[in-house]
Amino acid sequence: MKVCSTESVAQQDVTMPGAQGCQVRWLVGREDGAPNFAMRQFEVEPGGFTPRHHHPYEHEVYVLEGEGEVWEGDRRHPIRGGDVILVRPDELHQFRNTSTQSLKFLCLIPNSADNRPASERPECGFVATKGVGD
Amino acid sequence: MKVCSTESVAQQDVTMPGAQGCQVRWLVGREDGAPNFAMRQFEVEPGGFTPRHHHPYEHEVYVLEGEGEVWEGDRRHPIRGGDVILVRPDELHQFRNTSTQSLKFLCLIPNSADNRPASERPECGFVATKGVGD
Repeated sequence: MKVCSTESVAQQDVTMPGAQGCQVRWLVGREDGAPNFAMRQFEVEPGGFTPRHHHPYEHEVYVLEGEGEVWEGDRRHPIRGGDVILVRPDELHQFRNTSTQSLKFLCLIPNSADNRPASERPECGFVATKGVGD
Repeated sequence: MKVCSTESVAQQDVTMPGAQGCQVRWLVGREDGAPNFAMRQFEVEPGGFTPRHHHPYEHEVYVLEGEGEVWEGDRRHPIRGGDVILVRPDELHQFRNTSTQSLKFLCLIPNSADNRPASERPECGFVATKGVGD
C-alpha cells in the first residue's frame, strides 16, 4: 500500500509543447506498482492551459478546485470543482484556466500512455510514506 | 466527451456485504466509453466503513474531504482530504470514517473489476451533460 499526501509528491513543470503555466505531480504510477493506470494532479495558473491536442488514449479528469474550461474541438464547456470529464480516445481537447485562481484537477491515463523517461520516474515506494497511526 | 457535475450522477447505497454507511456514484464507467478504468466517488458516513477484503485488482484512491483511516491488514494509516492511496492487487484493506463528518474519496478500478449487472449501468451518454458555455 502507498499512502501519502499530495504535497509530499514533487511538483514538476509541464514542458510539453503547447502547455503554458502548468505543473504536474505524478501521484500514482507504474513505479509504485500500479498495474493499469496512472494518477496525476495538474495545477494550471490563471491564464494557463494544457496543450490543444489529441491522442489515442483517454483522460479521466476530476476537477478539485478552481474554474476554467475544457475545449472539445471548437466547443467549450465550463468546468469547476466537483466536475468530471471523460476525454475519449482521439478527441481533440484542451484545458484552460479562465479564472483568477489556480485550477487543480486529477487526470488519469492508462499506463500505456505514460511516456516519461526512466529518469523521471522515482524509485518504487513499496511502503506507506505517511505517518502510521497505530 | 462527457462533462458533468458529481451531483448530477445518481448516488446509490453500497450493498456489498461488510460495508456500512457507504454510498457510491459511478462517475465514469465503460457505459460512457471509458476503455480501461472506472472512476467512482464514495461517501462514507461517520462510523461507516467499506468491506475489509482483498481482490486481485488495484484501487487508486484520492481523498476529497473528511478524515478517517485506511487499514492495510492490521495496520492503520490516517487519511484526510488531499491524501492519495494505492491499494495494490491482493492487499487486505478497509476504509473507515473515524470522524464526525462525511468521508469522501474517489476510488478507481480497472474495467475488468466492474461487476455491476447491466441493469445498474446507465445508458451510454456520448454527449456533454453539462451546460455549454459558447
